[in-house]
Amino acid sequence: MPDLFVKNDSVSPTGSLKDRSFAIAVSKAKELGVSQAFTYSSGNAGISLAAYASRARMKAVVAVNAWASAQKILMMQALGAEVIKLDWDSFEQVDKALAVLRGELRLYEFVNFVNPFRHEGQKTYAYEICEQLGWQVPDYMIHPIGTGGGIFATWKGFNELKRVGVIKKTPRMIGVQPAACAPLVDAFLRGSREAVPTGDAKATIAQSIASDMPFDRGRRPLRAVYESDGAMVAVTDEQIVASILMLGQEGIYSEPAGAATIAGAQMLVRQGVIEPGATVVCVVTGSGLKQPDVLQGMLKEPVAFKADSVELVEHVKGLFGDKKAFSH
Amino acid sequence: MPDLFVKNDSVSPTGSLKDRSFAIAVSKAKELGVSQAFTYSSGNAGISLAAYASRARMKAVVAVNAWASAQKILMMQALGAEVIKLDWDSFEQVDKALAVLRGELRLYEFVNFVNPFRHEGQKTYAYEICEQLGWQVPDYMIHPIGTGGGIFATWKGFNELKRVGVIKKTPRMIGVQPAACAPLVDAFLRGSREAVPTGDAKATIAQSIASDMPFDRGRRPLRAVYESDGAMVAVTDEQIVASILMLGQEGIYSEPAGAATIAGAQMLVRQGVIEPGATVVCVVTGSGLKQPDVLQGMLKEPVAFKADSVELVEHVKGLFGDKKAFSH
Repeated sequence: MPDLFVKNDSVSPTGSLKDRSFAIAVSKAKELGVSQAFTYSSGNAGISLAAYASRARMKAVVAVNAWASAQKILMMQALGAEVIKLDWDSFEQVDKALAVLRGELRLYEFVNFVNPFRHEGQKTYAYEICEQLGWQVPDYMIHPIGTGGGIFATWKGFNELKRVGVIKKTPRMIGVQPAACAPLVDAFLRGSREAVPTGDAKATIAQSIASDMPFDRGRRPLRAVYESDGAMVAVTDEQIVASILMLGQEGIYSEPAGAATIAGAQMLVRQGVIEPGATVVCVVTGSGLKQPDVLQGMLKEPVAFKADSVELVEHVKGLFGDKKAFSH
Repeated sequence: MPDLFVKNDSVSPTGSLKDRSFAIAVSKAKELGVSQAFTYSSGNAGISLAAYASRARMKAVVAVNAWASAQKILMMQALGAEVIKLDWDSFEQVDKALAVLRGELRLYEFVNFVNPFRHEGQKTYAYEICEQLGWQVPDYMIHPIGTGGGIFATWKGFNELKRVGVIKKTPRMIGVQPAACAPLVDAFLRGSREAVPTGDAKATIAQSIASDMPFDRGRRPLRAVYESDGAMVAVTDEQIVASILMLGQEGIYSEPAGAATIAGAQMLVRQGVIEPGATVVCVVTGSGLKQPDVLQGMLKEPVAFKADSVELVEHVKGLFGDKKAFSH
């Protein structure tokens, strides 16, 4: 695939694509006079809100799942947010809790789809990708999908660019979910425009897209896929790990959710859905540093040598093999 | 200090300032026809070499200390490098081992100060800082110091800018080391131009500047400090943690080594070395994500609530206090 491109958001300020949406959403909140920021997040969104709210001198409270990673919680706290853990049996309980907080405390919420400005930041994907391709439009855009805010916003961006005449066509939008937890893929395969809760969010390494209970039944991300004549595909954790290592060969350290797009591209080419000559953009949504332990036990343990041992020299020799130090 | 600036390299491609030097050093090696890359690193440099060597289709081997963090090793491996662990009793053993590898295998080495091109990349700090300050020169540049490659290269950059007439003066260069391991600070306080091994590299959280056996007796970084009429200061881990949290309030998640510059600035202002009205640039050299566990146990554990509990609402109310949701 000579025209496979990676849009690399692992280099965002807090290490994930969420910075696009919070840069705009927090700026807009500031303009509206908001001084209290609240969101519910499994990790990346809470970290991004913490960073931008601190810069905007806004008090931020982030509610996380009871099983959120200690490292992500520490990052939110270091960035100035108050963190509380939510324990729940069904997502309806969370919805209700958020409604109560909204109603009783009149909190300004940054939850995706609830806060309308998040998409306005997130859609800059479409602008930047077109600009970076010399105002050409890719044939396919591949997004990892949790709640589906990313693919929905990017689709919005492409449509707006087309409406104002900057581009002539729009890409086919492809959504990728982890096989263990793929309610939107299930809906797509059924030909449905509404997803139902299914799968187990804790059964995949792709933390930031592990969402077994789709917000609003996944209607808006599914619409993006159907309207664009796109597709949805599920990938296994094994395929995701292989894709992390492929991206590594290009110098990019991706979180599992980001690498899922590469695994998805491979599957769809094999299935004949994507032609190998197509222009494809894979969105790498976050840094592997966000889940530093994900490869633990999957790669071979480095061999240890005494610095003054003969074995060290022999081993290094073996690693380089017959390859000469200089090619000329 | 109204004119305290942060030069934020936590957003570099692999999360540390090392990307500046490896972008240039690997490009130059490629030009020279090098196909085998080798370095010795405690972490960040090895990660950066792994990324850039992979992009350049160069085979990379990184030797790390036996106590290097598992997470940094995984990142090097994910980025395509072979990693070996070196066990040693004295740094002379490492020096000798590297000399043997260089001699017998004719390896092209990327160790700082040995590879002359690393500084040529690293000195872009000086260019970017002047450019970003509207071609004004800061009064003070504050660098964390391990081997001292960063402060030496930045000083080189400022001098070159002055020599070609782009700037009229150069800043005073300040070096910061962790108190547990500060051989160059010791040398400076003695008025010496040569450091001796001292301290314990494992006794500080500031991993990426924990160097108890200064390369080449620290002569070049000490020269940068003396020539620029600068200073050196040691800071405690407690001061570093406080500075991580201060940077967090600005939306920046710093590794301990980067936050050490803020702690150093505070100390030198208190000591009357830096006047509060001075223009000061602190170099934040890497992302806090590189040491995700460093704050473990130091911040208060988030309180957990059942999603449908009354306590949740009361707690959130308490967190926001009397602050109104909207300021108008």
